[in-house]
Order: sequence, then C-alpha cells, then structure tokens
Amino acid sequence: MSFATHLKSLALVATCLILSAQTDAQEMTYSLAIHGGAGTITRDRMTPELEAAYREKLTEALRAGQTILAKGGAALDAVSAAITVMEDSPLFNAGKGAVFTNEGRNELDAAIMDGATLNAGAVTGVTRIRNPILLARAVMDKSPHVMLAQEGAEEFAREQGFELVNPLYFWTERRFKSLLAVQAEDSHALYLDHDETHKYGTVGAVALDAHGNLAAGTSTGGLTNKMWGRIGDSPIIGAGTYASNRSCAVSGTGTGEYYIRLTLAREVCALMEYTGAGVQQAADTMIHERLTGLGGDGGIIVVDKDGNIAMSFNTEGMYRGRVTSAAPEPVTAIYKDE
Amino acid sequence: MSFATHLKSLALVATCLILSAQTDAQEMTYSLAIHGGAGTITRDRMTPELEAAYREKLTEALRAGQTILAKGGAALDAVSAAITVMEDSPLFNAGKGAVFTNEGRNELDAAIMDGATLNAGAVTGVTRIRNPILLARAVMDKSPHVMLAQEGAEEFAREQGFELVNPLYFWTERRFKSLLAVQAEDSHALYLDHDETHKYGTVGAVALDAHGNLAAGTSTGGLTNKMWGRIGDSPIIGAGTYASNRSCAVSGTGTGEYYIRLTLAREVCALMEYTGAGVQQAADTMIHERLTGLGGDGGIIVVDKDGNIAMSFNTEGMYRGRVTSAAPEPVTAIYKDE
Repeated sequence: MSFATHLKSLALVATCLILSAQTDAQEMTYSLAIHGGAGTITRDRMTPELEAAYREKLTEALRAGQTILAKGGAALDAVSAAITVMEDSPLFNAGKGAVFTNEGRNELDAAIMDGATLNAGAVTGVTRIRNPILLARAVMDKSPHVMLAQEGAEEFAREQGFELVNPLYFWTERRFKSLLAVQAEDSHALYLDHDETHKYGTVGAVALDAHGNLAAGTSTGGLTNKMWGRIGDSPIIGAGTYASNRSCAVSGTGTGEYYIRLTLAREVCALMEYTGAGVQQAADTMIHERLTGLGGDGGIIVVDKDGNIAMSFNTEGMYRGRVTSAAPEPVTAIYKDE
Repeated sequence: MSFATHLKSLALVATCLILSAQTDAQEMTYSLAIHGGAGTITRDRMTPELEAAYREKLTEALRAGQTILAKGGAALDAVSAAITVMEDSPLFNAGKGAVFTNEGRNELDAAIMDGATLNAGAVTGVTRIRNPILLARAVMDKSPHVMLAQEGAEEFAREQGFELVNPLYFWTERRFKSLLAVQAEDSHALYLDHDETHKYGTVGAVALDAHGNLAAGTSTGGLTNKMWGRIGDSPIIGAGTYASNRSCAVSGTGTGEYYIRLTLAREVCALMEYTGAGVQQAADTMIHERLTGLGGDGGIIVVDKDGNIAMSFNTEGMYRGRVTSAAPEPVTAIYKDE
C-alpha cells in the first residue's frame, strides 16, 4: 500500500469515527428535571438580584447533569451531579445553606434511588458530610443497607473515605437568623419559617438516561427549628424519593409528614403502573387531590420512562428547571404562572 | 305512678339496657392478626417446650387485642395491646429480647398507622423505651411529626412522661450469645444469625375494629450485629407498616432493605385499591413474586377492610396468630404447613 493510500485510509477511518461519534451524540436521548424547594415564592418577595442568582444556580445544576447525560452517562450520576451543585450553594436548604434545628445544628438528610435495580441509599441526621447525596449513593453502592442514621452513617462515611467537615461549614447567617426569629416567637414552633421563600427548601433531581434508566435523588436540611430527631420525607424511599424503570422517577419537597403518610413518591409511579395514568395526571392527582386533601403543601418533579417531565405543586412557587435532549437549552422557573 | 309501676318501669329499662348491650356485643365484628417474626423455623429446630411457650405468648397477645375489639374498642388500641405483650416477652426480637447491635446495644424501632386518617407515628434507634410501639403511638397522637430518631425521640418521650429504662433492661443472654457467636465468625457479618429461628424476629399486628377502622403496627430490635445506625423497614411507613381504610392494614417481617425498596406494605394496599386484587392475591404477589424476585426473604400479615385476613411468607415458618368475631377462639401457627 502506498503512503498516499495509507493516508486516505486513515482519513476515512477518522471520518467514520467522527460521524459515528456525532451519531451517538444525536442518539443520546435524555431528560432531566430539578427542584430547589417549594413555598410562598412570589415576585413581591423576590429581588431581581436574588431571582437571577437562583436561575443561574438552577441552570448550573441542570448543566452539570446534562453534561453527563449527553455523553451517555448514567441517570444516577446526573442526579448526583445536579444535586451536588445545589448542596454546595447557600441558596438552597441542603448541604451548605441548610436550616438549623431547635438546638442550633444543621442535620442533613438525603436519598437516591436507581430505577433499573430498585437499589436505594439514604442517610438521615448527618452533620459532618458536605454532600449528603454522595453519602446516600455510597450507602446504596457500598453497604448492604438502604438507610443509615446520624453518627452511625458518619462512621460508615469515614470507612468509605469521606472527608468529615467541621459542622460550622454549614453555618450561614441567613438561616441562623431564621432560627432566632422563629424561636423569638415560639421556641417550639415547628412549621413557622420567617423566610417564607424557603418554607420547604429541599432540593432534588430526576433523570432518564440514554440507556432507558431512571433515577431520583433528594437532599435537605429539613425544617427550621425541628426537634426530637425528626425525620422527614426526603430520606424515606417511597415518600420523598422513588424511581422504577417500569414507570417513573420522583423527587418531592413539602410538608414531609404528609408525603410519608401518602408514600407520595411511590404512589405517583403506582398510579402510572396500575391505572395507566399519564405522568402529569399522576403527579396532579397526588399533589392537588391527595396532598391537598390531607392538608399538606408542596410539590414534586417527575420524569417518566419515555422522558416526559411533569412538575406539580400547590404552593405559590417552586424553584425548578428542566433540560432534555429534544430541548437542550436549560429552562428554569420559579413562580406558579411560569 | 305507683311504686310497683316504678319498679316495673325500672325493670323494663334495665332489661332493655342488658338486651341492648348483648346485641352490641354480638354486633362487634372484628379481625386481628399478629406475627412474631419469620425465618428458618422448622420442627427439628424446636423443642416442645419452646413451641408451647411461643403459642402461649401469641395467644396472650391475641387475647389482649381481642378484649379491646370485642368491646368495640379501636383497632389502634388493639394493635398496641397485642404488640406490647410481645415486646414484653424475651421470646421475640422486640422490646425485651431485642437483638444486639455491633456495639452491643439494643436499638429499637417501631411504627403504627391509623387507616382512618392515615396518621402515623414511628421511632427509630431508641434504647431506653420499654415499649417502643407506645412511643410511636405518642409521636402520632402528640407531635406534628411522623418519625423521630434516637436521643431526640427519647427527649420527646421524656416530655410525654414516658419512663426511660436502664438499657440493661433489654439485655438477654440468648441474644447476647447470638451476637458473640456472629462476631466470632465475622465481626462485620450483617445477615448471619446463629439463632436461625429468629432471623427476622420483628413483631407486628393488624386489626379491623367494629367501626370499620383499620390499623397496623410493627416493632423490632432489627438485625443482630447491625452497624452504622442502620434503619430497617419496620419504622418506615409504607415499607414494613401501612394502613388505609380504603383497602387494608399490613405489617411485615423480613429483610427490611427489600421491603423499603418495594414500599412493600403500601404496595399490598395499592394492588387492592388499583387492580382489584383480593387480600390473599395482593399479599402473595408482593411476597412470592416481588420480594422473592428481588432476592428478599420474609412475610406479611394483612387484614382488609372487610375483615379478611391474609398471611404470606417465603421462609420456612412465621410465628403468627389470628382471631376474629366470627372465630373468636385464637388460632396460632408457626410452620409453613399449618
């Protein structure tokens, strides 16, 4: 073979590789939705600067997940990546920026679930883990358990090589002032929050990847002034977090006790699996009929096995965003009328 | 009116009251089922004395619940009463007789749910509460929360007037030897249990009362040698415990992680509500198809809104019992072929 023929062959191979890569990229269908909490979020409570900051951070979280999904990465990894961005931001009630308990601590909960295997991991009441969603992932991947609590969860984290941060890492003036304001009014107040835009500031993500796998994750600092080691819905598989490739992936934010009593996240999937409900119908049934019917507030994000996204909430607003292979420009929203 | 007429009137009223009371008693329809754990329970592993002790204690638990139900009492109270009997007995892995954690402690979990209101209460990781089921009930009735953990739950208990017992109250030689035997083989062994008759020794009860209300409750010491603050299915509403007047009440015992991933207890009810499955069919689907399919072991007891009882397990045996207004003589069973 001549040198010129060699060159031609090489060029042909290179072209094929490029075309093949492009084709792969085009075939990577995915859907990703995130939330950063629901509550009394209205335009008159918001400054343009704060709104811009939220939209920017939500977009960053979407991009972090999208980067993984667009390369054919796993829904689980996209969910972790998106949530990690929000945990690291003081804007949201998860990780850095978590609210304070009655005793002035930041106690964090998180859960993640793999729709392909129904594997799941969760942690509750951790105080020294920078990214609780990553510890939940480790519980799923590296332990025979689903749910670990408090110091025990941190001992597992240490064994797994997680850095244990000084709890002061989670301290923010804004949240601490919220605690003081609540306690000034009523030292046992549990659902009051003077920072109404963050009444339920949990963060979460749901994703469908190119392999057809669904995943869901949720992370939270819980309720301002919470007492008695209260565990909310976020780390409870079936309540605030659920995923099954047979139907959908769900993450919730709201009055957690109602989500637990309704096994709300799982129920969205059950409605789809057993009654043939569409994703929006299933989401609306759980939020606008069941949750509202019991007297609870909040919202959910859902992605179904075909990549359809539904978001439903009965509060004034919910920080949220979406990006899909079909509409690859991230879209964020905050208010009800968006 | 003469004195004699007075007397006659009084006698008539008294007769009416007695008749009415008898009629009421006859009309008190109820169903109660209990379990004391599932596992490799076979006749060759059992002595006649031990078997008799189990049957006697199961009967006592059934009688405790029946006494309440026969008088028109609440399903919730019957469930609490039956579980309290089993918690107080060292025969079962709940309350007195609980297994030991890796660190040689007894950490107890319990949950209770009211099918009429979907109210629920649960505690996890308590070490000083004699009857965790009663604390779960207090969480439901006296707090705005569903689930409290560890020291926080005990602080709530103290505020509610519960006696905090010395943790040594829960120490039993049999369970301590089990821990030592497990650790002698593998200090991290999580699912081994040399006392195979108690692999999953959780206790539970489900009831339908004369008012048509359903309730479910579960109490456990968890797994021998458990680590890292592991939380199983028993205190997770929807996993090991669920009740809804729309369908049924469920309590489970088994490899808790699988129950959590399947939201197994709720799913029995969901199958009844959404697919029209009967109670035995729904129970069998969850145990013999879904749980077995994922690789999990265990059983459930279920009572539906019409008082039908189903018990399903994929282990060699399950300590169990039932009593109803139609068959008011308690019946107990242990082995698969009973």
